[in-house]
Amino acid sequence: MSTKEIISRDEFLNHWQGHRTLTRKTIEAFPEAEIFKFSIGGMRVFGDLIKELLSIAAPGLDGIVHKKIEGYSHELPELKTKSDLLNEWDQQTSQINELFKQIPDEQFHESFNLFGEYEFPVYQNLLYFVDNEIHHRAQGFVYLRALGIEPPFFWDR
Amino acid sequence: MSTKEIISRDEFLNHWQGHRTLTRKTIEAFPEAEIFKFSIGGMRVFGDLIKELLSIAAPGLDGIVHKKIEGYSHELPELKTKSDLLNEWDQQTSQINELFKQIPDEQFHESFNLFGEYEFPVYQNLLYFVDNEIHHRAQGFVYLRALGIEPPFFWDR
Repeated sequence: MSTKEIISRDEFLNHWQGHRTLTRKTIEAFPEAEIFKFSIGGMRVFGDLIKELLSIAAPGLDGIVHKKIEGYSHELPELKTKSDLLNEWDQQTSQINELFKQIPDEQFHESFNLFGEYEFPVYQNLLYFVDNEIHHRAQGFVYLRALGIEPPFFWDR
Repeated sequence: MSTKEIISRDEFLNHWQGHRTLTRKTIEAFPEAEIFKFSIGGMRVFGDLIKELLSIAAPGLDGIVHKKIEGYSHELPELKTKSDLLNEWDQQTSQINELFKQIPDEQFHESFNLFGEYEFPVYQNLLYFVDNEIHHRAQGFVYLRALGIEPPFFWDR
């Protein structure tokens, strides 16, 4: 058992924003005509997967920072086009930077009931945000390949 | 700029092994007849994606611990069936636990030329192992959906 810490808060934030840069490129790679239309095997369209990410990242961080326990919604009916998604993505990029630095150091290992549903230590909630983004973006990579479009490089962040 | 550390070595290892448990369930969910056959959009079959993960995780960690700089190969021609993949997966589970605890605390932020190709701090190499696994497993989730098979739950680790 070792409690030696290996990833700092700045390293984590850079890691997350690097992934967000790659996801932004993945949104850009989708044709407007397919982003809310194309799917495989009954799964959600990529635009809806991105709405899920947008309804989790900055809203979840806002909940953590302000200790607000509110449910969440994936709907975001106001986002209807690829450029709507990209604009909201960019707004959240700055919000995340602002909110993240407001988390007190000691809070990362405290438990928080995210969205009133997910009671975990804050660092685990944050890891979940990134994991879930990688997961859904990878589904977008398959959609792009199926559409005959080359996705961005996985390491291009 | 804050260098306060937020994720400990044990927390990271548990996080990684949790993801490995979910990936193992994803391998198990594939029909034997499809795991080395089915693909979408010209992508690799899921068996080959798993071989990539197997050629990176324990071998990469072995390189980090023993400061060996050797190239890697995704081929692993000896792994021909789903049960070959699962057996190798399980062997690496113990190897990873053994090797991870041999990384000296101070090494996590030292640069290492992984496989003679990827010169990054060790904590970034380790994050890459997990990210890359989430990415390829998610592609497997789409393959399963396309085959009409329900993948495991993302949170089931």
